[in-house]
Amino acid sequence: MKVDGVPYRTIWLADDGWSVEIIDQTRLPHAFVIARLAVWQDAVRAIRDMLVRGAPLIGVTGAYGLCLALHEDPSNAMLRKASAQLRSARPTAVNLAWAIDHMVESLAPLEASVREAGAYRLAADMADDDVECCRQIGVHGAEIIRQVAARKTTQGPVNILTHCNAGWLATVDHGTALSPIYTAHDDGIPVHVWVDETRPRNQGASLTAWELGRHGVPHTLIADNAGGHLMQKGMVDMCITGTDRTAASGDVCNKIGTYLKALAASDNDIPFYVALPHSTIDWSVNNGVADIPIEQRGAEEVTEIAGRTSDGSVVTVSLAPEGTPAANYAFDVTPARLVTGLVTERGVCPASAEGLETLYPEWKTP
Amino acid sequence: MKVDGVPYRTIWLADDGWSVEIIDQTRLPHAFVIARLAVWQDAVRAIRDMLVRGAPLIGVTGAYGLCLALHEDPSNAMLRKASAQLRSARPTAVNLAWAIDHMVESLAPLEASVREAGAYRLAADMADDDVECCRQIGVHGAEIIRQVAARKTTQGPVNILTHCNAGWLATVDHGTALSPIYTAHDDGIPVHVWVDETRPRNQGASLTAWELGRHGVPHTLIADNAGGHLMQKGMVDMCITGTDRTAASGDVCNKIGTYLKALAASDNDIPFYVALPHSTIDWSVNNGVADIPIEQRGAEEVTEIAGRTSDGSVVTVSLAPEGTPAANYAFDVTPARLVTGLVTERGVCPASAEGLETLYPEWKTP
Repeated sequence: MKVDGVPYRTIWLADDGWSVEIIDQTRLPHAFVIARLAVWQDAVRAIRDMLVRGAPLIGVTGAYGLCLALHEDPSNAMLRKASAQLRSARPTAVNLAWAIDHMVESLAPLEASVREAGAYRLAADMADDDVECCRQIGVHGAEIIRQVAARKTTQGPVNILTHCNAGWLATVDHGTALSPIYTAHDDGIPVHVWVDETRPRNQGASLTAWELGRHGVPHTLIADNAGGHLMQKGMVDMCITGTDRTAASGDVCNKIGTYLKALAASDNDIPFYVALPHSTIDWSVNNGVADIPIEQRGAEEVTEIAGRTSDGSVVTVSLAPEGTPAANYAFDVTPARLVTGLVTERGVCPASAEGLETLYPEWKTP
Repeated sequence: MKVDGVPYRTIWLADDGWSVEIIDQTRLPHAFVIARLAVWQDAVRAIRDMLVRGAPLIGVTGAYGLCLALHEDPSNAMLRKASAQLRSARPTAVNLAWAIDHMVESLAPLEASVREAGAYRLAADMADDDVECCRQIGVHGAEIIRQVAARKTTQGPVNILTHCNAGWLATVDHGTALSPIYTAHDDGIPVHVWVDETRPRNQGASLTAWELGRHGVPHTLIADNAGGHLMQKGMVDMCITGTDRTAASGDVCNKIGTYLKALAASDNDIPFYVALPHSTIDWSVNNGVADIPIEQRGAEEVTEIAGRTSDGSVVTVSLAPEGTPAANYAFDVTPARLVTGLVTERGVCPASAEGLETLYPEWKTP
């Protein structure tokens, strides 16, 4: 998408044709900094230190890391060493392991002399596939926004509430939950986005507000507490979020707090959509609330926060009395009964086993 | 309640017998500072600059401000001037206007020579009445906690979720929502409190966590987003919050985000109680969602936050991209259908017109 009029992806080949450039997302929203990955260890660091984030982008960064390794040395030894370290840069990132395994399987049988070229081709395909998948989510989701706009009986834009960041910064381009919004906006449908700040890591305030603002999509930042009131007062026409893991039953595991917004949407008869690429569907899970384990992160993400001081420097401050115990559950599960529909690259379906099976019949249990 | 073993109220007469001392709540949780009010203008400033907060405490501070004025000069001129300025120190605080009017009505007919003594007696009575009212809320609410403890089938303390600060810092002592928790804890019922940080002003993180910690009540700070997940997982046995305004129908207007927690409690069959002194009941309002106006506050409360740096100084930092638009609705209304019961100084009743009329028959419409 665009940053102040200039089109960007989150990862791309540099002008030299072999090194890789990324947006250093740890610096957002306080600074827009491009980082160059010149050796494969730079890719390991970029993944480990979260300069890149979001499952698809992490996978593509791993793939380009392997390109950098083979650019330096196309030997079997390097392929083994670099793939092992890249694969473990973030142990729980399923897309990363998949991307590295896919690269190694394709490259290992090749002559060393053609491995580098093959690797760059595979990585570019992986990036383009992700962009196309997200673009399709945007096309299908924008149709929903168009229908909501047509049904709307009051003046003003379609007001869409979103939680966390499921935007282009979490993918290679377009995003998942934000892709329909960008598509609708670019097609001339008036939209306005309520951006949940998304405590404790504030991905809404720091990433979603930034990318919507840079692309020129009207938006307003709110505390996570505000959404229920806005819905009661008719100020939200629809909700759309991403998902980190989608159960075969349609339950969605997404950033902590998503469940509360889905409850409020249901209580006020507001449609609540979840956007996802098929790669988030876990066909082995049928009861999301019972069976998806919820990651707990460090308490300091709740008790401390980083921000920009008046002189432009970024500092971390403590918000609570010294020594206050805190708990930090990173995700929650929204039961399928609260989800109006799932927006995938293949179209929109009900949040249910039957719904998903119509879009993905190859997964239908016999 | 206690601060590290020493009993405190939020306002009291100094050892000299006439000047007034308060806890400077703007310095919490980073510093525990006692401020002395030596002239009546100090009381105006303490109310205006929010060194004191919470309707009952603001009222009592206004009353003591008038004592300070009459200590300096018991004339009619002073009574007029000081009462007018104290009354308008926070224009929307109903308790403040009520307290000042009550003082003036009682003192104006008196000889100037006995006004000072009369004023101090009235202010002390007002403080004691508030303490007794909150203590009674504690007695009635603790009985609910005792019943929940008796019914609990799992190990561990009664886990109670609260939102915002309805503790002793918002009253003269005991608090409203926290009063039952203090009473239960002091009576030996094992309790543990999930403290919503309560964005954007963070009264949970800065005030509730502080007062529970200083009194020794086990608690854990959480992001406002976390409560739904905790309830889904059986980690919350009951919720209790305060209310800023209670409709005659039992709808409650409380800090933004209360409604979302009430929805989650209802979805998971967890009792949701609201504690209140009768002074918050607005008998003229029957539909809280439609008819209670919701205050909007400055956007900077969402985009900026104050915290303690590693060197102990307190700084304000920006959390969002420069120029990000933000909205800041301060309260929301929880419909009575989501409230299990109202805990008042006269006992517990259903959140309904009928329920309130059984406790306050003098208000029953003929």
